[in-house]
Amino acid sequence: MSPMEPEEARSPEQRKADTLAKLAQEAVDVWVATASADGEAHLVPLSLAWDGDRVILATERRSRTFANLQRSGRARLALGPERDVVMIDAVLVSVIDAGMVPHSVGDAYAAQADWDPRQAGEGFVYVVLAPERIQAWREANEIAGRTLMRHGKWLT
Amino acid sequence: MSPMEPEEARSPEQRKADTLAKLAQEAVDVWVATASADGEAHLVPLSLAWDGDRVILATERRSRTFANLQRSGRARLALGPERDVVMIDAVLVSVIDAGMVPHSVGDAYAAQADWDPRQAGEGFVYVVLAPERIQAWREANEIAGRTLMRHGKWLT
Repeated sequence: MSPMEPEEARSPEQRKADTLAKLAQEAVDVWVATASADGEAHLVPLSLAWDGDRVILATERRSRTFANLQRSGRARLALGPERDVVMIDAVLVSVIDAGMVPHSVGDAYAAQADWDPRQAGEGFVYVVLAPERIQAWREANEIAGRTLMRHGKWLT
Repeated sequence: MSPMEPEEARSPEQRKADTLAKLAQEAVDVWVATASADGEAHLVPLSLAWDGDRVILATERRSRTFANLQRSGRARLALGPERDVVMIDAVLVSVIDAGMVPHSVGDAYAAQADWDPRQAGEGFVYVVLAPERIQAWREANEIAGRTLMRHGKWLT
């Protein structure tokens, strides 16, 4: 983020539309920040699927991200690039073993992401996250008005 | 990250060269993940400067990122895009009030970043971070060999 003002700030409607478009992109990764009980941050890029309400990720059951998610029930997600960001504070709503995932979820994930955890061997899980807060901004002139969703409700 | 194998995996030398080039880019932001004492992750994009050994960031003294950094002394940094990543685990080595920063540091930051915290009013601090571990990968075929620095020492 920098205090430059290169372009007009977008309207709330435009930011929401841009955010939904970013979430619906194919083969896109999201940065996933989680924390351990002793307060150490972890950060990894993971493929993303979006069902219109929820973020669906897949990761290895033995990963630090999964351990942190299970413990805290929370993650902070970011879609880039860094000067056109969407930040999502989300809560964990379910965990589904890749071997037991409903076809609807598994197919939706495989369609948007460019890989299929069901084909990737043992040990993968889907995690379903519900956004509580979504913010979007490009440069400093978009810091005002950056909050698009609060307490799980779109403001626009 | 996806289990595709679109290109040849880069050599360690190439990954190091690419990593140093990314760190030296002008007007680039880095994702900064930190954690609070109660295990909540925070994640923000911040402008980056690199002096050849250390990452220099600037942020508001009252930010959550700064509070988390001061408490834990650690951050996990990521340079994107998400499928050409550099991940840096770093420790905090110093904090310098923007009003008291040596010219050499302030000028180096302003030259690489596209803003100058010294001109941005009260309340900004520089934080200097020493990388302990650096990893770089593009796709799943680069997971092997992703570690370029360990315990603060380049392996190549």
